[in-house]
Amino acid sequence: MDHYLSVAVDAAKLAGKVIAENFYAEKHVEHKGKVDLVTETDKACEKLAFEHIAKTFPDHKFIGEETTALSGTFELDDSPTWIIDPLDGTTNFVHRYPFVCISIGLTIKKVPVVGVIYNPILNELFTAVKNGGAFLNGSPIRVSSQEHLGSALLASEVGVKRDKLTVDATTDRLNSFLYKVRSLRMSGSCALNLCGIACGRLDIFYELGYGGPWDVAAGVVIVQEAGGHIFAPSGEEFDLTKQRIAASNGLLKDSFVQALKETNAL
Amino acid sequence: MDHYLSVAVDAAKLAGKVIAENFYAEKHVEHKGKVDLVTETDKACEKLAFEHIAKTFPDHKFIGEETTALSGTFELDDSPTWIIDPLDGTTNFVHRYPFVCISIGLTIKKVPVVGVIYNPILNELFTAVKNGGAFLNGSPIRVSSQEHLGSALLASEVGVKRDKLTVDATTDRLNSFLYKVRSLRMSGSCALNLCGIACGRLDIFYELGYGGPWDVAAGVVIVQEAGGHIFAPSGEEFDLTKQRIAASNGLLKDSFVQALKETNAL
Repeated sequence: MDHYLSVAVDAAKLAGKVIAENFYAEKHVEHKGKVDLVTETDKACEKLAFEHIAKTFPDHKFIGEETTALSGTFELDDSPTWIIDPLDGTTNFVHRYPFVCISIGLTIKKVPVVGVIYNPILNELFTAVKNGGAFLNGSPIRVSSQEHLGSALLASEVGVKRDKLTVDATTDRLNSFLYKVRSLRMSGSCALNLCGIACGRLDIFYELGYGGPWDVAAGVVIVQEAGGHIFAPSGEEFDLTKQRIAASNGLLKDSFVQALKETNAL
Repeated sequence: MDHYLSVAVDAAKLAGKVIAENFYAEKHVEHKGKVDLVTETDKACEKLAFEHIAKTFPDHKFIGEETTALSGTFELDDSPTWIIDPLDGTTNFVHRYPFVCISIGLTIKKVPVVGVIYNPILNELFTAVKNGGAFLNGSPIRVSSQEHLGSALLASEVGVKRDKLTVDATTDRLNSFLYKVRSLRMSGSCALNLCGIACGRLDIFYELGYGGPWDVAAGVVIVQEAGGHIFAPSGEEFDLTKQRIAASNGLLKDSFVQALKETNAL
């Protein structure tokens, strides 16, 4: 496992360097959807990370956000599989808002076992290996000890869908939560929100309709190894192939799931 | 003016050191409202900043968030007046979410003429003097050149009021904007959102019902000196004594005001 981790960290550092070098440059932006963006840096970083890991593990499988966007599908099986978002927070990258990262997760038998998330602008490297704890720049991290929903800091995102059904459900949920939690943050990066849960900066997080498993594969391990819980917003078991995630510490999970149910928008 | 600026920067650095030293410590939190928090660091930093500036400018007036919270009122007149938020983003500070800052503004004849905003966690110092340009860590900054509302990154906040009228108006506005802008960020710091506009990370920002002039006095100068516009969300002239602000570059102002009007929630 430590070998997997060190290769993933090297790949993240390589791609992170490219993200940082291009952060203040003018970007050539393409649209995958009305508000869903991709840049040359996303594609270059995915290639770089894939190639670096494949040199050491040529038999492993790869699932990447940009490769999947081209092929239209991905298939997750029991093989060791590297699941990579080369640039989570592409909109932030385009606007130079400093919440950007590369997210590299490894699944074995469909279970996330290694997670590396690197923000090269704020120089924060989050790492975890199953049963080995979670770390920020080498120091152990732990979820918050918050136990009251009313004192909890919630993170969520508005996603990239802009049809009336989705937008209304999104703001209805926020409306419902504003009576129940302390406040709300939106950083624009699903992977970094999971890191926020893992190091206790955020208490609860949910997102529905994010892009795919590349947004969460690494974060799942990091949250779990920091003592947190990952679950479907319904309270059921989390499914890596669906686009619905919630995360919190164990003390808040039940009241958080109940509050999510009461939003009537799941 | 340069003397005012250098004294304000020194005061910000002194207070910022205290914020940074206490950032990872356990906090003693008091409630000013259900979700409106204050800590000993807020109070200590206000005292520190006031005293440092008063040593050099004993005849100037002072308006601070925490002093005003105690007295219940403030009065802004034509005298040189230092308007200080010792810790903007107190909720972030309590949760160790890295968007915190001290904001120091100087008004002369009620017009903001010096602005210093310092985030000691991310080590970002924003400064501006009227007619002297705006700077981040000494380098000139400029608002974005975004001209299409549909490509704009919007920042706003949910504030600290939790009555139904305010919460519904807040989420109704967000609902309306989600069809018109690219995406939405919430950092939890009004002063740092204004800095985000000034350096082009954010394209448009509005907030209604923030705490008082200490949240914006410094940011107003920084945005204006970075080439941006500060106005009331109604499109009328901004009033420092009211709690309603909007900021953008000049290219977006008209379409932004129009979009704010269409939210029917002003």
